[in-house]
Amino acid sequence: MAWHLAQAYEKHPNVTVLEVYSRNLSHAEKLSRTLLCTQATDDLNFSKSKADIFILAISDDAIEAISQELLLPDGAIVAHTSGSQPLSVLEKLTYPKGVFYPLQTFSKDTKVDFNTVTFCIEGESPEVEDKLKELASFLSPYIYAVSSEQRATLHIAAVFACNFTNYMWGISQNILQENGASLGILQSLIQETIRKALTNHPFEVQTGPAVRRDAQVVQKHLDFLEKHPDFRNIYLMMTDQIQKLEK
Amino acid sequence: MAWHLAQAYEKHPNVTVLEVYSRNLSHAEKLSRTLLCTQATDDLNFSKSKADIFILAISDDAIEAISQELLLPDGAIVAHTSGSQPLSVLEKLTYPKGVFYPLQTFSKDTKVDFNTVTFCIEGESPEVEDKLKELASFLSPYIYAVSSEQRATLHIAAVFACNFTNYMWGISQNILQENGASLGILQSLIQETIRKALTNHPFEVQTGPAVRRDAQVVQKHLDFLEKHPDFRNIYLMMTDQIQKLEK
Repeated sequence: MAWHLAQAYEKHPNVTVLEVYSRNLSHAEKLSRTLLCTQATDDLNFSKSKADIFILAISDDAIEAISQELLLPDGAIVAHTSGSQPLSVLEKLTYPKGVFYPLQTFSKDTKVDFNTVTFCIEGESPEVEDKLKELASFLSPYIYAVSSEQRATLHIAAVFACNFTNYMWGISQNILQENGASLGILQSLIQETIRKALTNHPFEVQTGPAVRRDAQVVQKHLDFLEKHPDFRNIYLMMTDQIQKLEK
Repeated sequence: MAWHLAQAYEKHPNVTVLEVYSRNLSHAEKLSRTLLCTQATDDLNFSKSKADIFILAISDDAIEAISQELLLPDGAIVAHTSGSQPLSVLEKLTYPKGVFYPLQTFSKDTKVDFNTVTFCIEGESPEVEDKLKELASFLSPYIYAVSSEQRATLHIAAVFACNFTNYMWGISQNILQENGASLGILQSLIQETIRKALTNHPFEVQTGPAVRRDAQVVQKHLDFLEKHPDFRNIYLMMTDQIQKLEK
């Protein structure tokens, strides 16, 4: 996330990325080489820095420890970028603090178009919230004030809506590839399924053999999946769950 | 499906929908009233009909029985629309036969834009295949010759890629609604997840706490899901499966 955010802000005329920190200096240098005006460092003493905002784009478990070693200039804001950590993980700090959470899936090799990313902002005060919202507004128009509790919920919902669905597409791709096809053939069907899921409650527009209680088709699919016991278990469990929907 | 297909063909200058059959005459009448030039009937004797193609848009279990009662005019083609039934389910018929399978999710209340629907066509002969492809071409440019074996695979892949993902979005919507939000807030994230899944193997771009082996976040989510034991079971199983991916 540090990589994507730094490169996105680098292009914005109102923002300068001044420093990049990593415990491993060579990692910081690798990113800073792609940017102008940016120092790489492995030192958490930023008391002489001219930066206004320090973004902790680090793994969830590292936030508390790293933040307590930070030395910041007066008035600087510190914000973490975690979907699952509350604002209170920073409570021991005396600096103004907040959360700057881009609700997006990041892979280092895939370019992110921040224009369509939803930013979830939380500040310990209205001033911090406004500053962080302004920072987000340079990248995207989709900015929401989201409390720590709401963010926790969003994160769980996103695991189901994105991580688990992605795994389902992986199963689909495996099955298709074994038979000389690929997930692309299902693209239009997937898009239509999403469109319907976003304009209705998904449970109300559930389709397929499970919800139709088409036992013959379900059995045929289970037979086909004999050679993929893990996929078969997922098929069984999902079919079971879907059949609990009241129709 | 009968409903959507009839209404889509009704608008096409090269196609006339002549008859609509249902075991229950009033169902057939309900559809025929929305069409021009269309007779409703509950009689399977079509020997005097002027139609060239008879489409069996009926439930999978009914295809074999209904098709054997059909009486068709000489040379007319009969095709079923099932993703999961082979062409051979029609083998006892002496008429030219095929499969006309629109790979799409149909709900009676949701309008279908056939322009983007993928049609999977199979014919017992090249002539039948060509006729059915021509019929499909009036609605969509996405037409594939797909054998019964390939169609069975496609159907299973679609269950994972669409039906099971839709259920995941339903869980997500439930969790969000309980907290005053809705699935729309995740729309951009969902779209980005699909884009990545279609341009890579989904397993290679898997993200989230499971694949990161972030035990702390997983535990937090499981605690949150205590009040939804079914969703919690799905979370556990999917997390388990995702952690088997080699990264």
